[in-house]
Amino acid sequence: MASTMKAVIKARPGPGLELTERPIPQVGSNEVLVKVMAASICGTDQHIYKWDKWAESRLRPPVIVGHEVCGEVVARGAQVVEPNVGEFVSLESHVICNRCAYCRTGRGHICQNTRLIGVDRDGGFAEYIAIDAQNAWPNPPGLPVEIAVLQENFGNAVHTAFATDVTAKKVLVTGCGPVGLMTIAVARAAAARSIYATDISPYRLDLAWRMGADLALNARDNVVEQILAATDREGVDILLETSGAPSAIEQGFTVLKVGGEAALLGVAPGPFTFDWNHHLVFKAARVYGINGRRLWETWYQSRALVRSGAVDLSPLVTHRFSLEEFDKAFAVMASGESGKIVLFP
Amino acid sequence: MASTMKAVIKARPGPGLELTERPIPQVGSNEVLVKVMAASICGTDQHIYKWDKWAESRLRPPVIVGHEVCGEVVARGAQVVEPNVGEFVSLESHVICNRCAYCRTGRGHICQNTRLIGVDRDGGFAEYIAIDAQNAWPNPPGLPVEIAVLQENFGNAVHTAFATDVTAKKVLVTGCGPVGLMTIAVARAAAARSIYATDISPYRLDLAWRMGADLALNARDNVVEQILAATDREGVDILLETSGAPSAIEQGFTVLKVGGEAALLGVAPGPFTFDWNHHLVFKAARVYGINGRRLWETWYQSRALVRSGAVDLSPLVTHRFSLEEFDKAFAVMASGESGKIVLFP
Amino acid sequence: MASTMKAVIKARPGPGLELTERPIPQVGSNEVLVKVMAASICGTDQHIYKWDKWAESRLRPPVIVGHEVCGEVVARGAQVVEPNVGEFVSLESHVICNRCAYCRTGRGHICQNTRLIGVDRDGGFAEYIAIDAQNAWPNPPGLPVEIAVLQENFGNAVHTAFATDVTAKKVLVTGCGPVGLMTIAVARAAAARSIYATDISPYRLDLAWRMGADLALNARDNVVEQILAATDREGVDILLETSGAPSAIEQGFTVLKVGGEAALLGVAPGPFTFDWNHHLVFKAARVYGINGRRLWETWYQSRALVRSGAVDLSPLVTHRFSLEEFDKAFAVMASGESGKIVLFP
Amino acid sequence: MASTMKAVIKARPGPGLELTERPIPQVGSNEVLVKVMAASICGTDQHIYKWDKWAESRLRPPVIVGHEVCGEVVARGAQVVEPNVGEFVSLESHVICNRCAYCRTGRGHICQNTRLIGVDRDGGFAEYIAIDAQNAWPNPPGLPVEIAVLQENFGNAVHTAFATDVTAKKVLVTGCGPVGLMTIAVARAAAARSIYATDISPYRLDLAWRMGADLALNARDNVVEQILAATDREGVDILLETSGAPSAIEQGFTVLKVGGEAALLGVAPGPFTFDWNHHLVFKAARVYGINGRRLWETWYQSRALVRSGAVDLSPLVTHRFSLEEFDKAFAVMASGESGKIVLFP
Repeated sequence: MASTMKAVIKARPGPGLELTERPIPQVGSNEVLVKVMAASICGTDQHIYKWDKWAESRLRPPVIVGHEVCGEVVARGAQVVEPNVGEFVSLESHVICNRCAYCRTGRGHICQNTRLIGVDRDGGFAEYIAIDAQNAWPNPPGLPVEIAVLQENFGNAVHTAFATDVTAKKVLVTGCGPVGLMTIAVARAAAARSIYATDISPYRLDLAWRMGADLALNARDNVVEQILAATDREGVDILLETSGAPSAIEQGFTVLKVGGEAALLGVAPGPFTFDWNHHLVFKAARVYGINGRRLWETWYQSRALVRSGAVDLSPLVTHRFSLEEFDKAFAVMASGESGKIVLFP
Repeated sequence: MASTMKAVIKARPGPGLELTERPIPQVGSNEVLVKVMAASICGTDQHIYKWDKWAESRLRPPVIVGHEVCGEVVARGAQVVEPNVGEFVSLESHVICNRCAYCRTGRGHICQNTRLIGVDRDGGFAEYIAIDAQNAWPNPPGLPVEIAVLQENFGNAVHTAFATDVTAKKVLVTGCGPVGLMTIAVARAAAARSIYATDISPYRLDLAWRMGADLALNARDNVVEQILAATDREGVDILLETSGAPSAIEQGFTVLKVGGEAALLGVAPGPFTFDWNHHLVFKAARVYGINGRRLWETWYQSRALVRSGAVDLSPLVTHRFSLEEFDKAFAVMASGESGKIVLFP
Repeated sequence: MASTMKAVIKARPGPGLELTERPIPQVGSNEVLVKVMAASICGTDQHIYKWDKWAESRLRPPVIVGHEVCGEVVARGAQVVEPNVGEFVSLESHVICNRCAYCRTGRGHICQNTRLIGVDRDGGFAEYIAIDAQNAWPNPPGLPVEIAVLQENFGNAVHTAFATDVTAKKVLVTGCGPVGLMTIAVARAAAARSIYATDISPYRLDLAWRMGADLALNARDNVVEQILAATDREGVDILLETSGAPSAIEQGFTVLKVGGEAALLGVAPGPFTFDWNHHLVFKAARVYGINGRRLWETWYQSRALVRSGAVDLSPLVTHRFSLEEFDKAFAVMASGESGKIVLFP
Repeated sequence: MASTMKAVIKARPGPGLELTERPIPQVGSNEVLVKVMAASICGTDQHIYKWDKWAESRLRPPVIVGHEVCGEVVARGAQVVEPNVGEFVSLESHVICNRCAYCRTGRGHICQNTRLIGVDRDGGFAEYIAIDAQNAWPNPPGLPVEIAVLQENFGNAVHTAFATDVTAKKVLVTGCGPVGLMTIAVARAAAARSIYATDISPYRLDLAWRMGADLALNARDNVVEQILAATDREGVDILLETSGAPSAIEQGFTVLKVGGEAALLGVAPGPFTFDWNHHLVFKAARVYGINGRRLWETWYQSRALVRSGAVDLSPLVTHRFSLEEFDKAFAVMASGESGKIVLFP
């Protein structure tokens, strides 16, 4: 094995990324070394690429970026019991402390000591990555690489859709970015009564139909009236909010039935004015903020959904590039005309 | 409208039923009169036909039998607000008191003042039946009559399957009578990870495959070993017990994972020896006794599953007879070579 | 029995109420006539007294006001089975339809056809009131009248406190009006780990201590820092919001732990700016809008808490007046220096 | 520090235990060394003392017995982050794998790779014990040693009582051994509507009254009739079964309401005949097998209950001995005339 590898890094504060050569990382006693087979791009990576305020406040360059990764285990630390060398794994991006009250009560997804690969420590836009053994999740045999690489992000969708029970319920998914689109697929797999989806991009609305929406609506086209018309004026039982847009949140809560439930994944641009009484109190709404994936319950669910064939993620992968072409990949992503974009080192 | 109607009654204690002429019933102020379009046969009807101990202790002949019914509302009592005359309805068979603590807390399915049509009061193997308006459940437009008639029984399956969350879980359904078969279809619709089914009838196991089982096993053929082999020696997450056979219960709890859940619908022939420690305590099992359908939550769920197309019950209807041919119908049912048998008045 | 009775009515649009003579109401077939033994004043009554915008939009005078009532059943309609004449009852103020999907699935508290006594139809600031039999809730024998009259309002507190499981949890109650104060008592009864309470009225903070708060804080005195100091900088597990004040909501969500839960009963003065990301999404908060009382589950819980002695509401009753003294009573209430005020006809 | 310590061991197969001298254990890299301040005796220890079939099948002598332990951390392995040297801790007796699906989804209490101290590996009837750092649970400051030592066992009671929500419910606790007695105290703290308790020992029934039972009944004295009489013929909402006696289980399920819930901790002497239909299916019962304590949720709850003063365990400690007097202690325990017995090294 060579001693160095290709890696895409944020070298210093400011926009852009660069390809460089870095030492192949050493594994700690509880870590595995994973040879990266694919890495996909997330909205977070875009924030880092652009170097927005969030990125500026959080990252300490230089750091290898990328947190949606799959690959093969090629080495293990002394205390690692599983996975084995040779296993094909997807990575959970949050390295948690295992000691706090959250980690000790099955809520590691909200561990406050978490360190995110590609952000707080080196990530996976590289040929190799070292990571805690428990973060290397064995995939079912035969899972295509470009589906395996989506599992981390798919977990957001599974977590959102399963925040409550969508079976036999009318569901609205606001936002048809990759997570919204996968959320549609999960709700469809779990026999939602009907699925409405909104976005402002015709490209994404087209994908929404393909992922299983019964009705994909442009958020600028009187969504409230169209959903009320489609639901006997009753509205929806469940809102799965993945956009973070205050206007979409307003639409979603307006068509949410009294007694309805809302799972909130989308991050808003900032505080905004919200009609507390009508949307929460009088509506007797139940609202769930969603972070990452449940560790590790969501991973078990995700694997089961993919393995049984209940969810087919393949329509979502719209673009493929070599790792070296990362600038092209980010340009496509910036166009808004993409599903998931996968990089191959 | 004529003043009398055809009806199949238990005329007096003892085996068999007879076709007779009876007055068309008057509706009470909160009741509707339903013109029966179809009625299907349940295991309970068979107990009544044979006049077993349960039937002897419960029925007070003469009584019109039959409790799985669909039809058209043709008259309403003075205080009825809905459904309307002309609506196509399926009937909930339990007429509940609406006053007890169960009815007042959303648990009317276990109301202890319940009166069952076709058992405690006149039922639906007849041309007409009068019943409380709230028991006449509007069907979606266009629902085939022979699917509509199954809704009461389908509710047992929906209640059983949704006693817990089957999505992404490994499920064993013990017993492939009609309820077991419909339970398989519901678990499949809700994206169970895998569904194993057992019965001793090859005819029913064949139907189990058709309703969506991944593996349909003869209960006499080393079921425990086969299920362990199919599940990486881990067993199943969820047991849905619809047989009532102590041997099936034993098999089911043996392959149930530690921490697993079991919904129990099947009625056993009597008390039996059960390994309390290994099957409940040490196993940390969660067990749910199932009665009828949740009133009325299950009906909303059932309608949604049928209406969205998530569940297709049509393979289950294997025999159709005119009401007058009821003796033939009971003979087919006794053979064990049937799914659901529907009578048309 | 006389044919007329004293009643306090909103006679016409505009501020104030007046005492008048009205016919004793006739009971419908499903109703009971209740001789009022006591009626207490709610914030809603104050809105009606003042004739604010909400009152103007909702009330159609003339109407007898008052919805917190207890009394004795003195007559019953023809179809009433229970309660019996002579029973001592408290009244549920929401007369629900019993037919909609909410009523049919154990969620009658959010029935959209509900009619509120004292608002949408005649209420209980009178000598008699006619109401649906199911709304007349039998009290335990020996319950003092001035505790019985609080049961409707107490149900708000029970519903709020039991929106989630407070046992062994750190709880913040924002707002120490009567509902907030009773919420403190319920959380204390259910073995909350610790209870923090905030208000801006020293009078009410004093009552908060008496109802069981571990720490009662003036909302103007750096509440966030004081609660963090009292909780090892961790904050609280549960927020029970009864104030509706945006500043209290902001404080409450600021000290709510990641993964915490919030029950929202307080009605805000209008839409306001809210930090969606930090208070809901990133916090993985679970938030529950609270309406009225669960019908009828909350009533069973309330009766059990009072009957077992787990909750003692007596410190809360601070003022008593005759019905004729209603103007004095409203003046006391307007002063903010009161717990519950009870009127005796 | 000396290099050897006193320890009570099962030296070889057969009845009895013996006091011996053993090396003070070395700590592994993730372990702490705890200087034992007290150890209490559990029913399991009695099985080991007597050397019954279970003990014979499970233990591999020589082994230091004892698994209810508290003490002070006196040394730590290299990788231990917490607790600190000097902390006063109680020990969780199950050393779990942290890697299996149960451990990874917040269900470590049913980890199938668990190793129990005092059974599968050396325990705490000794001056020192080495144990995984995560099993050493920091106690609140000032907790008396003889309360701290009960925490492991108290966790069984908390887990049992909190298997469902006892607040405002009628509860039957069958079996008034130490766990049953502590279960009574927890149900009382959480505002159960009423608590009935049964046992056959007058000594233990006396303790049941002291721990908060409303009615403590001799299981031989027509318990079913007495509980029905005390509950308006309705029975109880919740059964907390800690005896394992088939006769108590029969009594408990007989008085359990339709729709009731049962938590099962007691271990039966073997399989027995059970009325499946009436006790589970027709009753629509919900039944939960209970194992150990939830790791680590129960520990957080237990600490909160003790720290807030909601539960007072002090009446339960009836006997105290030095470690050397272990034979006397086991003799007292065999008499049935004891609550908890604490040994001091």
